[in-house]
Amino acid sequence: MTEIMVDLEGEGKIPLYEKIYHHIRIEIVEGRIPRGEKLPSTRLLAGNLAVSRSTVEMAYDQLLAEGYIRAEPCRGFFVCDISGLYQTGGQMQRSPEEPEREKGRAGTDFSPYAVDTEHFPFAIWRKITANILADEREELLDAGDGQGEYGLRDAIAGYLHQARGVVCSASQIVLGAGNEYLEMLMVQLLGRGRTILMENPGYTQAYRTFCGAGWHVELFSAGEALSAEFPTVSAPAERGTVSAAASGGEEAGLIYVMPSHQFPLGTVMPFRERLRLLSWAAEKEERFLIEDDHDSEFRYRGKPVPSLQSADRHGKVIYLGTFSKSIAPSLRVSYMVLPPVLLERYHRKCGFYSVTVPVMQQKILHIFLREGHFERHLNRMRGIYRVKHDFLLGELKKRSWVGKISGDHAGLHLLVEVRTEMDERELCRRARAEGIIISGLSQYDLSRGCCEKTGGCAPQLLLGYGGLNETEMKRGLAILDYIVEEEQK
Amino acid sequence: MTEIMVDLEGEGKIPLYEKIYHHIRIEIVEGRIPRGEKLPSTRLLAGNLAVSRSTVEMAYDQLLAEGYIRAEPCRGFFVCDISGLYQTGGQMQRSPEEPEREKGRAGTDFSPYAVDTEHFPFAIWRKITANILADEREELLDAGDGQGEYGLRDAIAGYLHQARGVVCSASQIVLGAGNEYLEMLMVQLLGRGRTILMENPGYTQAYRTFCGAGWHVELFSAGEALSAEFPTVSAPAERGTVSAAASGGEEAGLIYVMPSHQFPLGTVMPFRERLRLLSWAAEKEERFLIEDDHDSEFRYRGKPVPSLQSADRHGKVIYLGTFSKSIAPSLRVSYMVLPPVLLERYHRKCGFYSVTVPVMQQKILHIFLREGHFERHLNRMRGIYRVKHDFLLGELKKRSWVGKISGDHAGLHLLVEVRTEMDERELCRRARAEGIIISGLSQYDLSRGCCEKTGGCAPQLLLGYGGLNETEMKRGLAILDYIVEEEQK
Repeated sequence: MTEIMVDLEGEGKIPLYEKIYHHIRIEIVEGRIPRGEKLPSTRLLAGNLAVSRSTVEMAYDQLLAEGYIRAEPCRGFFVCDISGLYQTGGQMQRSPEEPEREKGRAGTDFSPYAVDTEHFPFAIWRKITANILADEREELLDAGDGQGEYGLRDAIAGYLHQARGVVCSASQIVLGAGNEYLEMLMVQLLGRGRTILMENPGYTQAYRTFCGAGWHVELFSAGEALSAEFPTVSAPAERGTVSAAASGGEEAGLIYVMPSHQFPLGTVMPFRERLRLLSWAAEKEERFLIEDDHDSEFRYRGKPVPSLQSADRHGKVIYLGTFSKSIAPSLRVSYMVLPPVLLERYHRKCGFYSVTVPVMQQKILHIFLREGHFERHLNRMRGIYRVKHDFLLGELKKRSWVGKISGDHAGLHLLVEVRTEMDERELCRRARAEGIIISGLSQYDLSRGCCEKTGGCAPQLLLGYGGLNETEMKRGLAILDYIVEEEQK
Repeated sequence: MTEIMVDLEGEGKIPLYEKIYHHIRIEIVEGRIPRGEKLPSTRLLAGNLAVSRSTVEMAYDQLLAEGYIRAEPCRGFFVCDISGLYQTGGQMQRSPEEPEREKGRAGTDFSPYAVDTEHFPFAIWRKITANILADEREELLDAGDGQGEYGLRDAIAGYLHQARGVVCSASQIVLGAGNEYLEMLMVQLLGRGRTILMENPGYTQAYRTFCGAGWHVELFSAGEALSAEFPTVSAPAERGTVSAAASGGEEAGLIYVMPSHQFPLGTVMPFRERLRLLSWAAEKEERFLIEDDHDSEFRYRGKPVPSLQSADRHGKVIYLGTFSKSIAPSLRVSYMVLPPVLLERYHRKCGFYSVTVPVMQQKILHIFLREGHFERHLNRMRGIYRVKHDFLLGELKKRSWVGKISGDHAGLHLLVEVRTEMDERELCRRARAEGIIISGLSQYDLSRGCCEKTGGCAPQLLLGYGGLNETEMKRGLAILDYIVEEEQK
């Protein structure tokens, strides 16, 4: 029988039984107590270590449960053959050498996707999380509802009705880990090989997701979108638009729009045009509109613009929303609202998919909404973003190199024309070289041809302010001053 | 100026300033303090309520931040027009009436996907979560790495190497919210319109995901999988297999297998056959093998079967793993290991996708792995599942209606032949009517034709024991006894 001496001093926070367990486990793993060896009885070891017998029993129970030792009735405890056990300690402890990645931490990140991370109510989030982990326990491990927890979907339906005029029930809502995942589901739901019209410039991620998942994408110029001829589009060639894949000339039955706040232009679609879209969709059974309502929570002047879905009387709008802007992109929670006509098809074609949002995350978010924290957070953030918006706008207006500013009074970025001889790409390149993460309008040109072909358009920069404080904005603008003035010399 | 009386008694946990804030907010929302009305000065209200002035200031600050009041210099605080604010209280509070869903709570759920939720170390998980929410804060809201946090991927690489012999670096790992999402990415990565061979019976979810995302799926009988002719398959018609979509006869360049523990049969692929698969894949550039290593953590006899990837010398295996079995399906964390040859293509075609696992979840899991909790949990669960396995096996062997039992000594379910005149569907239907959630082998028949055509095969039931305790197993078996005996009368 082996003798066991455990150092029970130091590291006061670890319970005694854990120290004994750890010590014996290491001795077994490293071969100092060999396979088949008998351990001292709990009574003997407790006496040697001057701890209670139950402390030793707890340590032995742990070792038993994890397969390091076995109990033989009336004989005692013996060390097992541990060659089949997982002992990852060595590998797990290695400190990962993360490859250098562009992080923008050192400089200024004008990304239009960045959100304010300073004012998030972490204390509330932590409290909700702790309560859920204490109270719900096993429910958290159940696979849960494929569309998402009913309570959360119901709370989202309530929020959407109040804030966006969206008319829906919880049964129409499908949660997903981000817009792109839901867009992949839409392709499966509505069928691959279809043609969808998208505004250009627009969200490159949505464009690439649709292409990647199997839709032909045709583009039309945002703003000119609703010209008289658009709903009659039948073949890509006729309009000279760029098609993502060779299309057989199928009539576009789908249109993707951002009517309340177009990205990246920031325009709002007039009501009359919305009605035209809706009546176009109502003409044929398989026509649908996808409304991406990405950041309409943040509008700083006037009342919120109602959603397209709120005016839909024929069940033609698939509404797509996200918590990426209103809380944070890292949350990875988006949702789509399916019109009733698509629900049966969804259950048949996509009903077998598990929800992609962890159940714990859903429960936290549910309580965050239910208890009014989301509403308070939104109202507070709108004030904070408005101050940032006003500050950036004021700073820009002082500058002679700043031309037309658009997309103001809503969202989390401004679109700024720059008076310079540099082309947009060169301007962005120089900014990046100085540590400024910035994008130009042409990066959201889905056809990737606009400014390069026509030439001579002034650069237009997207200045996102969501993630920046005033000092950071000032520093970023000072560097842009420098770059533009250098060029003028 | 309005007079404000706040009840500061009761609900002792809420800070005073919160009570004042709440009271005034409700007064404004419900119109009792009208728009434009002046609020009392902080000094006056503090005096009236007998609280400190800073308490009132905090309440006013909150109201200011959320847009309920505005401050006018030298004049005081005035109530805003709140028609544009979010006030969701009413809707959010409604108690959702969740529609009745089949939950299996009342009866016995023999699902092969269920896991033990009783022994999960919630206390540790909660502690890690609380620490992260306290320490990391703003990092949790950053969008994070598109493939997943580097530290977690590195820890997974370490685990896979130690436990499964998988040879990979963190850069080859892509995290995703479940296997199905990663399978959709695989289709985009390797190209739609391709033909993939799958064993039958198999995972219906993987089958449906591949079909839905755009691959032609051909089936071959599991077990007969590696017959001499299989790698030369060229057109579906020749083999009489079922094709998921009309295929142009493209040669299958992809094979999906579960070599370490076939689902649902529970078989292990012999080493020689693995080598044949690998050398078949090595013959052509665009041939790849998808290894779904879904539950190989749990093997109760002998050493773990090494992964197919561990024997791959030509970079032909895409390894797919999940925490759904080893922790819980609700976690929604899976990962794929791409061979180096596919990495550049992944970055080009799929690099724009955001990771679908929330950053907080990733950080928790990273620490759970890094600090050895995962290893301990696995070793402990293996012991617990082994006891459940042995118990169920013992109970089954006592029963005359139980024929051949297969798939034992690994995973979380047994495959049990039932001696009865009933067909499988009828048996499962009757079990469901008695509250037993159970599935038969034919439900995993991807061609949906096998037993119905040939007729006369004895029912084979999948008895999952992961989520059941001994009492529940006994109760479930007693009901099965009753159903089978009723039929014999």
